Amino acid sequence: MSGKLSVGLIGLGRLGRVYGRDLAQRVLDARLVAVADAQPGRAESFAREFGVPKWYDGHLELLADPDVEAVAIITSTSTHRQVVIDAAAARKAIFCEKPISLSLEGALEMTRAVEEVGVFFQMAFQRRFDAGYVAAKKKIDEGAIGTPVVLTSTSRDPFRPPLEFCDPKVSGGLIADMGVHDFDVARIFLGEVKSAHAIGGVLAYPEMKPIGDIDNAIIDLVFESGGLGAVHLSRNAVFGYDIRAEIWGTKGSIQIGYHRQTPILMMTEQGITHDVVPYFMERFENAYRAQIQDFVGHVLAGGQPTISGADAIAALRISLAANASLRMGRPVDVREIEVEK
Amino acid sequence: MSGKLSVGLIGLGRLGRVYGRDLAQRVLDARLVAVADAQPGRAESFAREFGVPKWYDGHLELLADPDVEAVAIITSTSTHRQVVIDAAAARKAIFCEKPISLSLEGALEMTRAVEEVGVFFQMAFQRRFDAGYVAAKKKIDEGAIGTPVVLTSTSRDPFRPPLEFCDPKVSGGLIADMGVHDFDVARIFLGEVKSAHAIGGVLAYPEMKPIGDIDNAIIDLVFESGGLGAVHLSRNAVFGYDIRAEIWGTKGSIQIGYHRQTPILMMTEQGITHDVVPYFMERFENAYRAQIQDFVGHVLAGGQPTISGADAIAALRISLAANASLRMGRPVDVREIEVEK
Amino acid sequence: MSGKLSVGLIGLGRLGRVYGRDLAQRVLDARLVAVADAQPGRAESFAREFGVPKWYDGHLELLADPDVEAVAIITSTSTHRQVVIDAAAARKAIFCEKPISLSLEGALEMTRAVEEVGVFFQMAFQRRFDAGYVAAKKKIDEGAIGTPVVLTSTSRDPFRPPLEFCDPKVSGGLIADMGVHDFDVARIFLGEVKSAHAIGGVLAYPEMKPIGDIDNAIIDLVFESGGLGAVHLSRNAVFGYDIRAEIWGTKGSIQIGYHRQTPILMMTEQGITHDVVPYFMERFENAYRAQIQDFVGHVLAGGQPTISGADAIAALRISLAANASLRMGRPVDVREIEVEK
Amino acid sequence: MSGKLSVGLIGLGRLGRVYGRDLAQRVLDARLVAVADAQPGRAESFAREFGVPKWYDGHLELLADPDVEAVAIITSTSTHRQVVIDAAAARKAIFCEKPISLSLEGALEMTRAVEEVGVFFQMAFQRRFDAGYVAAKKKIDEGAIGTPVVLTSTSRDPFRPPLEFCDPKVSGGLIADMGVHDFDVARIFLGEVKSAHAIGGVLAYPEMKPIGDIDNAIIDLVFESGGLGAVHLSRNAVFGYDIRAEIWGTKGSIQIGYHRQTPILMMTEQGITHDVVPYFMERFENAYRAQIQDFVGHVLAGGQPTISGADAIAALRISLAANASLRMGRPVDVREIEVEK
Repeated sequence: MSGKLSVGLIGLGRLGRVYGRDLAQRVLDARLVAVADAQPGRAESFAREFGVPKWYDGHLELLADPDVEAVAIITSTSTHRQVVIDAAAARKAIFCEKPISLSLEGALEMTRAVEEVGVFFQMAFQRRFDAGYVAAKKKIDEGAIGTPVVLTSTSRDPFRPPLEFCDPKVSGGLIADMGVHDFDVARIFLGEVKSAHAIGGVLAYPEMKPIGDIDNAIIDLVFESGGLGAVHLSRNAVFGYDIRAEIWGTKGSIQIGYHRQTPILMMTEQGITHDVVPYFMERFENAYRAQIQDFVGHVLAGGQPTISGADAIAALRISLAANASLRMGRPVDVREIEVEK
Repeated sequence: MSGKLSVGLIGLGRLGRVYGRDLAQRVLDARLVAVADAQPGRAESFAREFGVPKWYDGHLELLADPDVEAVAIITSTSTHRQVVIDAAAARKAIFCEKPISLSLEGALEMTRAVEEVGVFFQMAFQRRFDAGYVAAKKKIDEGAIGTPVVLTSTSRDPFRPPLEFCDPKVSGGLIADMGVHDFDVARIFLGEVKSAHAIGGVLAYPEMKPIGDIDNAIIDLVFESGGLGAVHLSRNAVFGYDIRAEIWGTKGSIQIGYHRQTPILMMTEQGITHDVVPYFMERFENAYRAQIQDFVGHVLAGGQPTISGADAIAALRISLAANASLRMGRPVDVREIEVEK
Repeated sequence: MSGKLSVGLIGLGRLGRVYGRDLAQRVLDARLVAVADAQPGRAESFAREFGVPKWYDGHLELLADPDVEAVAIITSTSTHRQVVIDAAAARKAIFCEKPISLSLEGALEMTRAVEEVGVFFQMAFQRRFDAGYVAAKKKIDEGAIGTPVVLTSTSRDPFRPPLEFCDPKVSGGLIADMGVHDFDVARIFLGEVKSAHAIGGVLAYPEMKPIGDIDNAIIDLVFESGGLGAVHLSRNAVFGYDIRAEIWGTKGSIQIGYHRQTPILMMTEQGITHDVVPYFMERFENAYRAQIQDFVGHVLAGGQPTISGADAIAALRISLAANASLRMGRPVDVREIEVEK
Repeated sequence: MSGKLSVGLIGLGRLGRVYGRDLAQRVLDARLVAVADAQPGRAESFAREFGVPKWYDGHLELLADPDVEAVAIITSTSTHRQVVIDAAAARKAIFCEKPISLSLEGALEMTRAVEEVGVFFQMAFQRRFDAGYVAAKKKIDEGAIGTPVVLTSTSRDPFRPPLEFCDPKVSGGLIADMGVHDFDVARIFLGEVKSAHAIGGVLAYPEMKPIGDIDNAIIDLVFESGGLGAVHLSRNAVFGYDIRAEIWGTKGSIQIGYHRQTPILMMTEQGITHDVVPYFMERFENAYRAQIQDFVGHVLAGGQPTISGADAIAALRISLAANASLRMGRPVDVREIEVEK
């Protein structure tokens, strides 16, 4: 067992299975020793397919397993609070998928629980592990574009999620669930955000209106440095999955993003055509693996998490300010966002 | 002389000379018969170089010339009001460079003067004549991307203008002078704008602060249709002149813009590099010619101007709302913009 | 009249009209004073449309006109010999469209006639005036890619010419008529050619077989320097007009070419699509104008022609060697090409 | 052991280690049970690093191991003949890296040995498993470009190999060692080759001359269908690893290839720059894994190998014809290539 980390995985939805397969087959120095999912039979079925020795239907049983040293929590956001608190109580090292929570209150409770026990706690924001974002960050840190002053970050899904997932009470809605990635990107490249102003609406899928979510939004950001940002969110990039960023500095700019999945060009009477990256699995497959690998490496080697609870809370605050701005029709300072009494 | 339009050109600054050379050599069915510029000697020197038969130092003398059937007014924005009113009084057909005026009051006075006399009056917005914007408009009108719902329009200059030009009292400042192009583009693709919210600052050239202008801004727009827009303005695209737009519809999107001036790629140990379009002359050379050609054609053939005073006023209102928003720190409805008493 | 060159244009086919319109409207320091075309009525009709004062049905009448100082010869290749010899006898400055002749014998007779009289004689190869080729040449001369050692030059038409034009006796066939552009490009970038080997066939249009021409060919070249080249020719680039070159040096390479005509990208469920340059008029419009402008400038200023008869003969020799290679199934040294006795 | 294939790997050079790591960690249903390398200590060191239970210095010892069901032979080309014959005698399923052999005689002896024993034998040509080539093949089989008639296939290394590897007696030289990939690609897209003509030389690295190899070559191909092809080979694409293909059909064409490794664009005063794929590991990492995975899947499931010995021999014949053409200065029919007596 020397040098290998025994990981338990909680939550086997679409993304949980990606992490699960990676942990079972591709993450160095990790052993996937147990999986849990609240949906009966799901954990067992996954465990049999990938040779995971143990499976549970409840997360508490997995947390009670002394063979489990670390847990990856990939459950739905609304359950993060309880599962993280339980995992901290069980003294497991914790990897938690974004967003940390739907409420500031929940997030603060989680980070307090983790700090009190002193367990290792790392948040997930896979764009930080994507080759494009990593290379851009490196170039900028080297001074390639001077001082970064303006940022654009774009997230566009090829279709809307199932309606039950659009309920802002479950997912946080477009701005919190999807935009939190862009808010994290914003912080990486331009630092802390001072205020946010959001506009948005139901422009493509009328059936989202009764659920209470929107399908398009633009959020402008003012940074504490005086820098400016714009975040573009959409659910109707029908041609594919469109993730981009552009960072403008005083001496140049860097664009991040690509659309071609397959390196071929078709040249016919219809013009010159290339394909696109269909969805997040294809776009971020390597980043998800690098991210969970990074967690395993950090737990084994000790040291600080790459992405802390404080990082997750900072991105959450921006989400909440943007949501409040959309509701109130005015810019909202992130410091206005407080725990509701 | 049958079939040729005799044009007088007022204003021989940088852009005036572009129009002048086109009128002298490349615009079909036009004869450049006179030029005027307030700077002594400038008109004569231009006239001698391009074989223009007459030259004047004052616009009133040119307007008094009975050989002049139509005038192109390319003077600085702050003089547009007087020159247009004088040209209307002289019953010349009028082509007026954008923006129409710095104030709503001025613009309304101009269009009233023109309407009272009933002369032909066409405004300039050269992007409407650029092959990219034209092709995008055609595709969208054909339904290629479904209903347009979101727009991004970007204007980035490679450097700041001379400081004396940055004074908002002369040029209207970044948002009015540069952004008015994007506000016109916004109207073409998504219709009338309901409200604007602007953020901006001096991020690249500290010397602009005392003059009272900014060098970067992001303006978000809400359209009357419910559609959303973002306009990005910058003076520090140090690599070149960066003009783009992207229109998102319910069935796809269209990107407009390009950076390569010369169709070569350099492949060396530094990577793969291509050049960029340096500035607006190179980017919009063909559009400027097409625009003045369109004016000449319309005057000769009769009919309505392609771009009316009302169009120019609509774009100006958005500029004024955006400037007010920047000042007040809140979204501003374009209907709030009224003639100051 | 001082400083203007009075030009007569002979041949008003598709390309002749492009030159004609440029000479009538856009070439500085030129006056198009006469046009001639063997097809009755064609010269008159063109002259009336573009305000050319004189027109003739025969080239000899135009050459007899003392007002004509210089002639542009844009007739079919098989007539070049006679028209150039007549123009030299009439002591006009001569601009001659490529290829100089279908036979080495004809070309040598032409250049001898020109030299004996001592008139100015400039050949046309418009790629030398295209922004891409010009920029590449400049970069290479500056040492950007080290020593050039390998070249690829590609010419692909979107469709086959009318069958009557495919007859090698009229046009020289695919290799001479189209490839001569690439052979000229080859000489510019890698110097003199030592030998050529051609393969080719009728691969797309079976109806070309009875006429005796081919629709696709690949010609490899060995340069006197030891450098290597490949020329790709095709008549079935059904998506558009595809003109490219790539020059490889010891320290990098340069690609020349582009496909997008309009700077827009369509992003729909079919993928990401852009348009293409349809044909040679659109691709080389600026180059044709620059080329005839260059001729006018050189005649007025004196000095040597930019492209000499010797240049044209060198490119012709490579064409003839490539055609011989195709016929004989083996590489052919260009020195094997001699005047047939 | 049910459902898993026990593989032994012979040859732990650069590429052998890629396969080894994949077999140890990423290939489903495979177990890397033994490794062998003639260089003392290399097998042990690799085995310890990747947890391989057994290691040998000689391939015969590995072949004698009854736990080994299948072998991957990644030794230098000159040893393929003996190792494959020995592996067939040991009745192991065989995966053999390209090229099959340096001589036709050797290749025929290998395939005879394999056929006599009846073991499974699959050759390696990793481009067949690259997403670009796979997607292009699929599109073409669906008729997207009509009938394929012309092919270009390009392989350019960023630098020359170590001189000892350039000796044609060891590696086959540029045309055989590198070009064999392109000859295989040619067969996939346009079918069997009839004849080849090669030109080549030492253009970038004078130090290769004494060794007897060249660093650049162009080979034109005539296919049995009448189709045409050109293969471009180079060792001095100093900017990176440049692998492309273009297939032209009667209704369009497909380009395969890309240069960007990281999805970022740098926009500075030097222009717009992106990086390149440095070398074959980065370019074909996924293809190598897919290829060995395909072998494992085929051995377990039974059936025919994806790439047979006959495929490898057909590509070898083209290599040998091209080398003969270079030597003799004339096109060579592949049927001229016979076993030397």
